[in-house]
Amino acid sequence: MDETVGDIGEFELINRIDQALLKEGAATPIGTVGIGDDCAAFKPRPGYEILLTCDCMVEGRHFLPDRISPFHLGRRAMTLNISDVGAMGGRPLYALVSLGLKKETFVSNILEMYRGFVAELNPFCATIIGGNLTRSEGPVFIDITVIGEVETGKMLRRTTAKTGDTILVTGFPGQSAAGLRLLKQSPEDENLDNHPLVQAYNRPSHRALEGARIAQSGLATAMIDTSDGLLGDLGHICMESGVGALLVQEELPVSATLQQTAFIMGCDPLDFVLSDSDDYELLITCAPKHAETVCTLISRSGSTSVKQIGTITSNPNTIELLQPDGTRRPLDPLGWDHFAK
Amino acid sequence: MDETVGDIGEFELINRIDQALLKEGAATPIGTVGIGDDCAAFKPRPGYEILLTCDCMVEGRHFLPDRISPFHLGRRAMTLNISDVGAMGGRPLYALVSLGLKKETFVSNILEMYRGFVAELNPFCATIIGGNLTRSEGPVFIDITVIGEVETGKMLRRTTAKTGDTILVTGFPGQSAAGLRLLKQSPEDENLDNHPLVQAYNRPSHRALEGARIAQSGLATAMIDTSDGLLGDLGHICMESGVGALLVQEELPVSATLQQTAFIMGCDPLDFVLSDSDDYELLITCAPKHAETVCTLISRSGSTSVKQIGTITSNPNTIELLQPDGTRRPLDPLGWDHFAK
Repeated sequence: MDETVGDIGEFELINRIDQALLKEGAATPIGTVGIGDDCAAFKPRPGYEILLTCDCMVEGRHFLPDRISPFHLGRRAMTLNISDVGAMGGRPLYALVSLGLKKETFVSNILEMYRGFVAELNPFCATIIGGNLTRSEGPVFIDITVIGEVETGKMLRRTTAKTGDTILVTGFPGQSAAGLRLLKQSPEDENLDNHPLVQAYNRPSHRALEGARIAQSGLATAMIDTSDGLLGDLGHICMESGVGALLVQEELPVSATLQQTAFIMGCDPLDFVLSDSDDYELLITCAPKHAETVCTLISRSGSTSVKQIGTITSNPNTIELLQPDGTRRPLDPLGWDHFAK
Repeated sequence: MDETVGDIGEFELINRIDQALLKEGAATPIGTVGIGDDCAAFKPRPGYEILLTCDCMVEGRHFLPDRISPFHLGRRAMTLNISDVGAMGGRPLYALVSLGLKKETFVSNILEMYRGFVAELNPFCATIIGGNLTRSEGPVFIDITVIGEVETGKMLRRTTAKTGDTILVTGFPGQSAAGLRLLKQSPEDENLDNHPLVQAYNRPSHRALEGARIAQSGLATAMIDTSDGLLGDLGHICMESGVGALLVQEELPVSATLQQTAFIMGCDPLDFVLSDSDDYELLITCAPKHAETVCTLISRSGSTSVKQIGTITSNPNTIELLQPDGTRRPLDPLGWDHFAK
């Protein structure tokens, strides 16, 4: 019989989660205070700065419960936080997990979600050391805070791109948006789990290892993850660095699958590549003379590709697309606005 | 005209919040990266450990929107997190604020809530350096992570109470529960804002300054805040320290207001003092020889009272109440269970 949160109550749920973490999670470093006190606590390493990020996923808005397994939901929620730490050049150390759960939520689903969390944390020996469980009458929400570290002086920000820099991007931004569109357009009983674009949406990968490597090299000038979409996040870099950008349309990475699917859907693949998309790729700027080395650093990881897609310009907040016919098209860098839509 | 979140959108809302924080919040220390990058970042102080806590409040469940002003809602949400840091002996440094908002939430109310957050953070020169805004179709939620620091070796935990220790408690636990009961029992249009018990519920105080002072003294063996109720949190100390407790009924702090109100309601004030209550007082254990000094440390702060209410015993997980007639009544230390009820 499938027990619910209401059946076993908060304290027993915490016990079960603790057991699952003990069994499947990485060991917490000695000296760390974990779940079960007023606060979690840890000793920071000398010579490192602390990174903090939090991201919240709400049922129906950031995930479709019928279209993603609890395990992958857990992985996805943790991935997007790890991605933020990686985009600053850091590595994740700890997570706090705050859940809003319905009384009728299945306990087995929650434990599966925690398995997803630790599946993403374990490669970094990072652990869940705190959090909060609360009952919500509304949609389930998953609010995660990830704490990371970055060597002092190595942090990569979005404020420091320079005119003339080369712009690079990893992977294929836009695939996730196309996967979401596919899910929304298809009948509920159609199993699209194995479609590469749906996988890009449901099972995104962060590039935190690549991010840390780039930060260590000291070769990049700015970095950000593409969580607001390629154009939205390039907009953040331009705004914060007081610069502009010229993207070369023919250099934008479009996967064969995206090309095909966009064709079938009757839309331009560029609409996906440039617009809002829940991909967690890295957007990097660096001096042109370092671009090849940065590309090599990323390629060597073996898990993603990288492309040089344009140049930082001196026109503040102006992003243009150099089209194949040589003309320039202005682009609106406004990314996904969670309330206006 | 009152603008809503849907009217101005996420980016403009972030701008307005940033402006309010700049105007009314404490200055962020140099070298700290605040809102507006993938992560917030700060340099930890050598010789200090980092404390992390998060707590979530859901509309209708943890606050009654019609019965608390947005400013006091903000204060309350921040207070309970600061309380957790104080209960470990630390002081708050930074906060991450994650909000789930409805499209129709008034912008002015959100800004008032942020004023409440900073009203609690400013005395510590602590600042909001990150967070997340998301739209929710369900109840509004406020999920706050507070990051604090405590000098290495000074942290006070709930695992270290010793047999024979004196148990102390600050203030008047149970007042908040009585205030909530009053609010729930009274007609919606009755203004109870100035009732001292309703104020205890809507405008609780943390004891973080007292907590830090006690930790600095090195005289306490264990400490916890009473966020799960006096009995619930004493239960946590007993469970985690492998001890029991004997409470002396006549020593339990009952305010005159609580006494009167319980009489009018026809209930025993002890039901409030011992049961679930959203007070943020401190429960402290220490060797009997240090009890007076600890009391003096707390009284000197001038903001709360303190009482010696019992003794730690060697019977694991057994809490008893010594009644005025000399008999002992066993108490069930199970605190507030957020799902079972």
